[in-house]
Amino acid sequence: MVTINPKEVSIPVMHSFLQGAVAPRPIALASTVDKVGNINLSPFSFFNVFGTNPPTLIFSPNRRVRDGSSKDTLDNVLGHDEVVICMVDYAMVEQMSLSSCEYDKGVNEFKKAGFTEGVSVMVKPPRVAESKAVFECRVKQVIQMGDAGGAPNLVICEVLLAHFSEDILNESGVIDQTKTDWVARLGGDWYCRASGNALFEVPKPSVHKGIGVDAVPDFIKNDKSFTGNDLGRLGNIAKQPSESEIAHFVHLNPHDNYKELGQMLLKQGRVKEAWMSLLYTEMCQK
Amino acid sequence: MVTINPKEVSIPVMHSFLQGAVAPRPIALASTVDKVGNINLSPFSFFNVFGTNPPTLIFSPNRRVRDGSSKDTLDNVLGHDEVVICMVDYAMVEQMSLSSCEYDKGVNEFKKAGFTEGVSVMVKPPRVAESKAVFECRVKQVIQMGDAGGAPNLVICEVLLAHFSEDILNESGVIDQTKTDWVARLGGDWYCRASGNALFEVPKPSVHKGIGVDAVPDFIKNDKSFTGNDLGRLGNIAKQPSESEIAHFVHLNPHDNYKELGQMLLKQGRVKEAWMSLLYTEMCQK
Repeated sequence: MVTINPKEVSIPVMHSFLQGAVAPRPIALASTVDKVGNINLSPFSFFNVFGTNPPTLIFSPNRRVRDGSSKDTLDNVLGHDEVVICMVDYAMVEQMSLSSCEYDKGVNEFKKAGFTEGVSVMVKPPRVAESKAVFECRVKQVIQMGDAGGAPNLVICEVLLAHFSEDILNESGVIDQTKTDWVARLGGDWYCRASGNALFEVPKPSVHKGIGVDAVPDFIKNDKSFTGNDLGRLGNIAKQPSESEIAHFVHLNPHDNYKELGQMLLKQGRVKEAWMSLLYTEMCQK
Repeated sequence: MVTINPKEVSIPVMHSFLQGAVAPRPIALASTVDKVGNINLSPFSFFNVFGTNPPTLIFSPNRRVRDGSSKDTLDNVLGHDEVVICMVDYAMVEQMSLSSCEYDKGVNEFKKAGFTEGVSVMVKPPRVAESKAVFECRVKQVIQMGDAGGAPNLVICEVLLAHFSEDILNESGVIDQTKTDWVARLGGDWYCRASGNALFEVPKPSVHKGIGVDAVPDFIKNDKSFTGNDLGRLGNIAKQPSESEIAHFVHLNPHDNYKELGQMLLKQGRVKEAWMSLLYTEMCQK
């Protein structure tokens, strides 16, 4: 490992490490207005959801690393405590990027980026009509964490009203993740597109406590042909199958290499069957 | 659009909308210790970097939606103000998921998940030796935003020391995003793998101000064969090419369909050439 002390490197160097490592980051396309009603639109990836009750989104319009100057979005939320946060999908990514240009104060980035202004219901800033998930928010608090370049400014937002495109919902009205096509930021000019082959599922272990990798037999743990992910899957079973279950499994699944079969089942996520197959290999050796 | 008022739906319903829409979210695998030194490890996706100066990471061990109870990680950071945040890549995802089991207080999730404890330099909690980016942090502040289920608890962390695996660095010692394989959370059981074809680049517009989509000629803007991304790319040029540049381009690139050529160049990110090709189609009609 290479060790970096933030106090011993420049701010741009540390910035680059943080952006490349804490990633991919969701993108808030934030619509705000100044005191006289000029509209501003700008994207922020120092952003996330932080809780549901109250529904809380936080983003940070940092002071610029270059010169410590503040961004229009920060000035706006300090003057008018409302923001509309619009999520960004792949179809919007080039326009979102264009909206990050440092246009002069008072320039409406909706027009520069070619986005359509949609009227909001509970707040003054408009929404991006092209966005498939929109949060109308009240700014509850702004925590300014310094005056220097790169200083965070936490804009803590409570969601007052949310809008979701029918395009990303299933028949039950719930978000279907295979229908979303969100983009997220990494370091440099890199983005990630969260759809297609990039998506995968890991069943939540919360319904039971997995027995743990520490309870996986040594003959498996010490075998380098099992990866960390293999061991994690095996550790996530609620209890080991019994000897009678194993006997039944073997009776129904005659095979000439139960280790190979077990590893194949594991890759397919058929964890209980993988356990039975692997445990049988050890029973045979006893 | 379907409109949702958070006050009119249940917390689990709102939770599901927020998790499916504010995504993909980076994952903090957080290592903490309690007052007597028991180690805890747990993953959090209500997490991000928020600034570089000071280097600031924030994550939220929410009160459980089920019963409002607090998580061991929150209790630990309130008792001992240190945390080691380890980033998660694809090779670790099943073990990370296993570490999210609600084991009894005092159970060491490093052992249950089969992770190796690495000794930290500046803080007491160990690091996950398998992680390729590790942040040793001081907890500067914990902001508890409620007692109910789903309430956020902002754990605001300052990075004291960072460690990066040589596996993700280029020859200059900078993170090479094509070498990272970070995973991130979406809604339900969904994850995103940020590598391979999921990665793409959009050149930052910050070196100049793009002329904006509002400055793109109507004959392009009104032509439905151009997508929002096409228009965003065209708007991101510093200035339109001159007539003499266009004449020179056409002389060097004889073609029988300059609209088709322009659209192809645009897809390839060759924006100035695309502009010349598209503007020539209009010059021909005058």
